[in-house]
Amino acid sequence: MAEPATDLALLRDRLGVIADLEQAQALLGWDQHTYMPAGGVEARGRQSATLAGLRHEHLVDDRLFDLLGRLEGSGLTGDDAALVREVRREVDRARRVPADLVTRLALQAALGQAVWAQARAADDFAAFAPELRATLALQRERAAALGDGDPYDVLHDLYERGSSAERVAQVFAPLRIEIAALLDAVRGSDRAPDLDVLARPVPEAAQEAFATEMVRAFGFDFARGRLDRTVHPFAQRIGPGDVRITTRYRSDRFAMALFGTLHESGHGMYEQNLPAAEARTPLGDSVSLGVHESQSRLWENLVGRGRPFWTWAYARLRAHAPGVFDDVDAERFVFAINAVRPTLIRVEADELTYHLHVMLRFELEQRLIAGSLDVADLPGAWAEESAALGLPTPPDDRQGCLQDVHWSAGMFGYFPTYTLGTLLSVQLWDALGRAVPDRDAHLAAGDFAPVFDWLVANVHDHGSRFAPDELVERATGAPLSADAYVRYARAKYGALYGFA
Amino acid sequence: MAEPATDLALLRDRLGVIADLEQAQALLGWDQHTYMPAGGVEARGRQSATLAGLRHEHLVDDRLFDLLGRLEGSGLTGDDAALVREVRREVDRARRVPADLVTRLALQAALGQAVWAQARAADDFAAFAPELRATLALQRERAAALGDGDPYDVLHDLYERGSSAERVAQVFAPLRIEIAALLDAVRGSDRAPDLDVLARPVPEAAQEAFATEMVRAFGFDFARGRLDRTVHPFAQRIGPGDVRITTRYRSDRFAMALFGTLHESGHGMYEQNLPAAEARTPLGDSVSLGVHESQSRLWENLVGRGRPFWTWAYARLRAHAPGVFDDVDAERFVFAINAVRPTLIRVEADELTYHLHVMLRFELEQRLIAGSLDVADLPGAWAEESAALGLPTPPDDRQGCLQDVHWSAGMFGYFPTYTLGTLLSVQLWDALGRAVPDRDAHLAAGDFAPVFDWLVANVHDHGSRFAPDELVERATGAPLSADAYVRYARAKYGALYGFA
Repeated sequence: MAEPATDLALLRDRLGVIADLEQAQALLGWDQHTYMPAGGVEARGRQSATLAGLRHEHLVDDRLFDLLGRLEGSGLTGDDAALVREVRREVDRARRVPADLVTRLALQAALGQAVWAQARAADDFAAFAPELRATLALQRERAAALGDGDPYDVLHDLYERGSSAERVAQVFAPLRIEIAALLDAVRGSDRAPDLDVLARPVPEAAQEAFATEMVRAFGFDFARGRLDRTVHPFAQRIGPGDVRITTRYRSDRFAMALFGTLHESGHGMYEQNLPAAEARTPLGDSVSLGVHESQSRLWENLVGRGRPFWTWAYARLRAHAPGVFDDVDAERFVFAINAVRPTLIRVEADELTYHLHVMLRFELEQRLIAGSLDVADLPGAWAEESAALGLPTPPDDRQGCLQDVHWSAGMFGYFPTYTLGTLLSVQLWDALGRAVPDRDAHLAAGDFAPVFDWLVANVHDHGSRFAPDELVERATGAPLSADAYVRYARAKYGALYGFA
Repeated sequence: MAEPATDLALLRDRLGVIADLEQAQALLGWDQHTYMPAGGVEARGRQSATLAGLRHEHLVDDRLFDLLGRLEGSGLTGDDAALVREVRREVDRARRVPADLVTRLALQAALGQAVWAQARAADDFAAFAPELRATLALQRERAAALGDGDPYDVLHDLYERGSSAERVAQVFAPLRIEIAALLDAVRGSDRAPDLDVLARPVPEAAQEAFATEMVRAFGFDFARGRLDRTVHPFAQRIGPGDVRITTRYRSDRFAMALFGTLHESGHGMYEQNLPAAEARTPLGDSVSLGVHESQSRLWENLVGRGRPFWTWAYARLRAHAPGVFDDVDAERFVFAINAVRPTLIRVEADELTYHLHVMLRFELEQRLIAGSLDVADLPGAWAEESAALGLPTPPDDRQGCLQDVHWSAGMFGYFPTYTLGTLLSVQLWDALGRAVPDRDAHLAAGDFAPVFDWLVANVHDHGSRFAPDELVERATGAPLSADAYVRYARAKYGALYGFA
């Protein structure tokens, strides 16, 4: 029988090949959304599918399975035990889904997205409905292959392990009530933000230079990363020393690129500071989508939309865009970038009403997976639930149930992670404030090191060593809830709108 | 026993996986030399090595070997037979080199290049000598594994199949005599080009816009390709609809970026117009380095440095760089970009004396591989052979035998392909002139379609269907020789320098 040390080395070798395939695939994806010429799309699909297939082959290889079995019986502790546990989770999941189902899922995701893009452009829900039906059937089949639990829970666990629909509902319930109350207060306020500030033209080059300066100051490392242009912004790790973020510019909407870039820099800094020694094992991966989103929202909202940050940053913005904001003082500017208005489109929503968009989708996708909502009835249910949440009724499906790509790609159970992550961002922010009492003074001086260092030590550097729940408890001293967010939202919007 | 049609489909599936791995690896390489941040270099090496290893595993897989055996006994003809022949060549070659030698070759290539880069920067040949010795020993071992022939011939055949040192020497001998005679005539001429024209500052953006307009006019398709910046320009196919070329800019040397881009566009158009239906088999690959170089040199020199082209292009250049060349007429400009001067650095050489650099390296690398020249004596031999060829004596090794990366990477037998390709470019040009008698009138009108179409039909579209020699005979009606080039050079430089 082999020594555990030898087996661990063999395990790491096998994981290394899998990680390299994932990283090469990450580059294929990044390139597709940044620089690839249009003519490359067909071959790119094949390249990506081949690498994904090889990754899967390596993950379900019996030699890896046997290695895991031996290591599990060898009394490992600490990080070694955590590594074996994480690999076991991935291997079991991969082995449960038959190869032909993997292929059908990939094909349906590609087809679904293509049909969805056309249907959205043509505002033609009927054209998309058959694909959504096929996608739902396949996702139910996938859930059944993966486990015995409730299908929605099984799928949601793929994105936020340890979580469940019941737990999400528990967290969302008080939040929904609170947002409704805050919206009433905002509507009743006699103060209103000056939204014209947000429409003032800022040259794209100035936007890029300012955003680059800000994320560099935060701690995003350009020697180990890049910022490029794309259509739908994202962050992507290509390798441990190579993390790329993307954004898009519109000269008459500077806030879009700015907060988009701050957001992606949060994702990027997380990826840049995962434990480098575990870069080719699952221990070196981010732990969940919710934790990932907590990092992007923290830098975007808690730092980037906060008054202390702009004490320092506003002069820098004015230097990059001379003359544009001469007549706008910092208070007026900060009020404008924190304006609350229920809108139709999720990705354009403000910080507060964003959660209503998530709740809408969470409600509907549970019913779609359960089969209690028929696909044909989705547009009607969307309008009904929007009204119940206080969101505007969409005039068409393009601005309604066709607006997001997720379902067309087979991603059910994904949406709640956006809100879970945002709630966590505030919970982390509070813990950070206790650990660094003069946090806001640092921000007002343009010194982000205390925030950056605390996040690296308490979140990034743990990789996947702890399950998400354990990570949250260790970092914040409490399980995830809406409490911190509710306190934060009351204080913030009370001060801005004058109902505190 | 399986049907040949079934076996062919199985063969194409297996080749498709190999092609996808090669294409993904091509993207890793392109990215490394264009956009990858510095921090990515370590992981990139591992990603690339893993993909290369998987490609090798698939190429030597016994199931592919057995498939080939069955297909070879099934009486295939035409392209199917050509496909099996090409795959057999690659498979046999891959199976002859033991896995541990493959690894040692890759490690030595990486180490050799790293030490060479430092040694060149420090002008320290002694620091590089041990790596060059180790590289030579490994390349001899590789040649012995690959075949029974003369080691140099075996290595040269990797880059220019069917060729040999003897054949190269036969082609080079009359060329060397002719270049010496032309250099004497140039030295004795009372005409001299105005080299100051080449040093006039042209803004980088103007250089890029002009070069982009030119290669687009040639036929390089930007919907299936890109032009980016890099340090050492190259062309790279990522996939059948995705071919990328690169260049570098210096505002006070516009000719460097311009002719570099025209050169790479020739490589790029070849790759863009290989048979698309064979994009995932070796039949869809370029056939040899010499044929590749014939395409780049044809567009760079025969088109790009020719008088007819500038009849159209000079006004376009002046439009992109207003005022810079107002006092320079087209004759003076064309003479300047065709100036002949023996220089120290190969990649900066003019069209005529470039061949002397190739001959120098061809002589020395044969002796290095044979062991008749000791590594310690390389700098001395370099100086001696340079003098014999009429090239300047290098004042140091940095500008002498340390100037090129090839040997440090284990590439012996590669250099001759530069000259073979250039000779072929003129032979093709003559054949093209016979097929399109008004060729120069088209060029003078900015119409490149007749040249482009002829090259696609007679070279690109054949992929690897014919061996290089057969392709040359079919396209030009004669085997490769220096004859056409000698006639061309006499006429061209005689007209420019007035000794016709």
